[in-house]
Amino acid sequence: MFKPETYSHRRNALRNELKGGIILFPGNTEAAFNYPANTYHFRQDSTFSYFFGINQPDLAGIMDLDNGNDILFGNDADMDDIIWMGPQPSIADRGRLAGIVHTKPLSGFEQYIKEALAGGRPVHFLPPYRGETKILLSAMLGIPVNELKAAASADLIRGIVMLRCIKSEEEVKEIEKMVDVAYLMHTTAMKMAHPGIVEQEIAGTVEGIALAKAGPVSFPVILSMDGQTLHNHYHGNTLTEGRMLVVDTGCESVETLYASDITRTVPVGGKFSRRQKEIYEIVLRANTEAIKAIKPGIPYRQIHLLAASVITEGLKELGLMKGDVEEAVKQGAHAMFFPHGLGHMLGMDVHDLENVGENFVGYDEETVRSEQFGTAFLRLGRKLQPGFVLTVEPGIYFIPALIDLWKAEGRCADFINFDKAETYKDFGGIRIEDDVLVTETGCRVLGTPIPKTVAEIEAMMAR
Amino acid sequence: MFKPETYSHRRNALRNELKGGIILFPGNTEAAFNYPANTYHFRQDSTFSYFFGINQPDLAGIMDLDNGNDILFGNDADMDDIIWMGPQPSIADRGRLAGIVHTKPLSGFEQYIKEALAGGRPVHFLPPYRGETKILLSAMLGIPVNELKAAASADLIRGIVMLRCIKSEEEVKEIEKMVDVAYLMHTTAMKMAHPGIVEQEIAGTVEGIALAKAGPVSFPVILSMDGQTLHNHYHGNTLTEGRMLVVDTGCESVETLYASDITRTVPVGGKFSRRQKEIYEIVLRANTEAIKAIKPGIPYRQIHLLAASVITEGLKELGLMKGDVEEAVKQGAHAMFFPHGLGHMLGMDVHDLENVGENFVGYDEETVRSEQFGTAFLRLGRKLQPGFVLTVEPGIYFIPALIDLWKAEGRCADFINFDKAETYKDFGGIRIEDDVLVTETGCRVLGTPIPKTVAEIEAMMAR
Repeated sequence: MFKPETYSHRRNALRNELKGGIILFPGNTEAAFNYPANTYHFRQDSTFSYFFGINQPDLAGIMDLDNGNDILFGNDADMDDIIWMGPQPSIADRGRLAGIVHTKPLSGFEQYIKEALAGGRPVHFLPPYRGETKILLSAMLGIPVNELKAAASADLIRGIVMLRCIKSEEEVKEIEKMVDVAYLMHTTAMKMAHPGIVEQEIAGTVEGIALAKAGPVSFPVILSMDGQTLHNHYHGNTLTEGRMLVVDTGCESVETLYASDITRTVPVGGKFSRRQKEIYEIVLRANTEAIKAIKPGIPYRQIHLLAASVITEGLKELGLMKGDVEEAVKQGAHAMFFPHGLGHMLGMDVHDLENVGENFVGYDEETVRSEQFGTAFLRLGRKLQPGFVLTVEPGIYFIPALIDLWKAEGRCADFINFDKAETYKDFGGIRIEDDVLVTETGCRVLGTPIPKTVAEIEAMMAR
Repeated sequence: MFKPETYSHRRNALRNELKGGIILFPGNTEAAFNYPANTYHFRQDSTFSYFFGINQPDLAGIMDLDNGNDILFGNDADMDDIIWMGPQPSIADRGRLAGIVHTKPLSGFEQYIKEALAGGRPVHFLPPYRGETKILLSAMLGIPVNELKAAASADLIRGIVMLRCIKSEEEVKEIEKMVDVAYLMHTTAMKMAHPGIVEQEIAGTVEGIALAKAGPVSFPVILSMDGQTLHNHYHGNTLTEGRMLVVDTGCESVETLYASDITRTVPVGGKFSRRQKEIYEIVLRANTEAIKAIKPGIPYRQIHLLAASVITEGLKELGLMKGDVEEAVKQGAHAMFFPHGLGHMLGMDVHDLENVGENFVGYDEETVRSEQFGTAFLRLGRKLQPGFVLTVEPGIYFIPALIDLWKAEGRCADFINFDKAETYKDFGGIRIEDDVLVTETGCRVLGTPIPKTVAEIEAMMAR
């Protein structure tokens, strides 16, 4: 946890953004794995953790905007809890750690809501994303489960987005620590990526490093020889010479929840072939050119389109694309090879605040989300501000089903050399991703540099 | 997965246990971690997996008892799925792998239920344990969420318990493979358990081995120098000389879900002190004497009480207990030191079938659950049958808060030497657990033997 003042400060800042009523912060409960008492690793709700700091189940918070009170709800441990879970701090002690003076038993949460509703006061809450929280809020608020999302408070969402998108120094430090653990995860994967090993061996080892050194992985490990599949969670392939391995992984702090999210792509066995190197250098150039261009005031969609241009230019040089680069990008031709966005906001969630809705986080009145295949998947499009932490993750993929579809439709045929693309159907995919802080004048790549150039990767894999 | 016939056979066996209507098998959905699209490792529902075999989200099954049809509901992948998740087998192909000929889109599940309800046919389902499944069933059946448990089918529960409690050879083989992975997990922990290392380092490494070699841990890793806390998930202590480390962990097959669950307790640094050895030998004797006594026809509660007697006898020799051993056990005096049950059924769930209710699994008309502190926590009390797989996990703990409470109350003062117990408040706890198959004539400890005697553990830790 940070100091109590950090949490008081955050709550006060939020208080200034809303007019009146009460704000609900239902903490997460344990999530059942295969029966009620056997649970996944407990994961606190990010917003609860941001404002109340305590990563324990069965807590809730209320900010009463009308009287200025912040209240933490939770139960003290009884003898059974002590036998099974060990001695626990009292709820009053937990509250003090978050700068809270008012604490009550958990049953008081429902009571407080009922009284506010009876008094006709506004009740602000975020859209719930877990079944148990939906059931709880539905019962307490008298709103059917499937209407909760629509009933969530847009004012609250806007206030929280504004605060959480700008990272303080202590937040950046936490993210940076997690990138340093990702360094270990990635360099270990590089050293293991030799022919004959099963992907699961590497994926499990990498996740074990996260758990040993930081906390859970910040999202399920993506690790595959079939890098053309963007979010591959199948880990059953045995690595073979001539293929590339995409590893997209990061971890989060078990204490503060801040996350890292890094991708590297390496040649199985440790040496890039000429064909691999040609594609790799294009993706690397897209990554480094994008990073160079990041600064406050520039819309991130512009950086995304810059990366798309670099990719189109490079693929044109190899004969995979053709025609006018600017026009090709305008028409979205690059998206057959680069069908996703350049990056997203990163913080206590790997896609920061995605639970409140992507468009509240990544877009605004000025920058409206594109509907074009490829750019439509860009999660962050709006103007950058100092304190944003975001990912830069261009990629080039040869997805057989997508090549077949576009070829059959003759889609962007003026810009794509389909015959040449056919010869890359066995290639897989390449993605290179860093975590970047927007500064006052430009940006800074966070954490210990993880091998990224062809030479650096080959050197690490030779160890 | 097993062969298609295995699943057909299981469904036919269940069909014979129920009279009519339809049986619902809602598969698990993805479980949200911190927002809807960022999920925990997918974990299929054990019962769905037992009868339908497919460990993918967003599937459901129905057995129609009136026309004999088994139907698998799920959707085929579209182009977006292929880009993000890779090519997927069709639902018809998935069905064939489980011996199913009737497959339909997922929307057909609700339709089928509605028609059955309209026709006044019985609809059998198990008590749901995940929020999302509760919401789904509640909407489809028109039963409020908090009434679903009471509306679950006792006939279905009894039929499934009967089938799943008796393990076939192929099931035992799966469990045994998981014990062999637990061997690696435990011997690695032993070699790491030296002064100066933080518990989290070992816990994360152990979980990484499970993920790399088998699948997820079958329950959150219990690993603590504070072994007196039975289910300790805090891993922040730095190991110090003179303490013991309890490691209670196992894994499950990502393919078939069968689990292992093993506990070992080792001296930090690798050498038992005299005091540690004295307590350790008592727990070990309780473990081995219990295993020797296991055979068909004997109630497991009797084995539990045998272990309690061995513990009482041993503690009496050390001067921690006193008086008549039989009477002490009858009055539950041992439970201050051994406050939990000797073991539980093990299978596709680490506490097998706990989602249907412990008493359906571990007790029957003949053997009713005890209400005495200690023995009340025994999950399995009824007569053993060949094919049961269960854990044997006696322990001795010195729980300061419990010693204080019993001493203050003068509870079982005729049998406990509280002054002596006071001197053990810094000891911690010891638990030793194996996984055992009940055979026709006795039992067999499953898997590669994991170091268990003082000599074996000291030898492994010296490596």
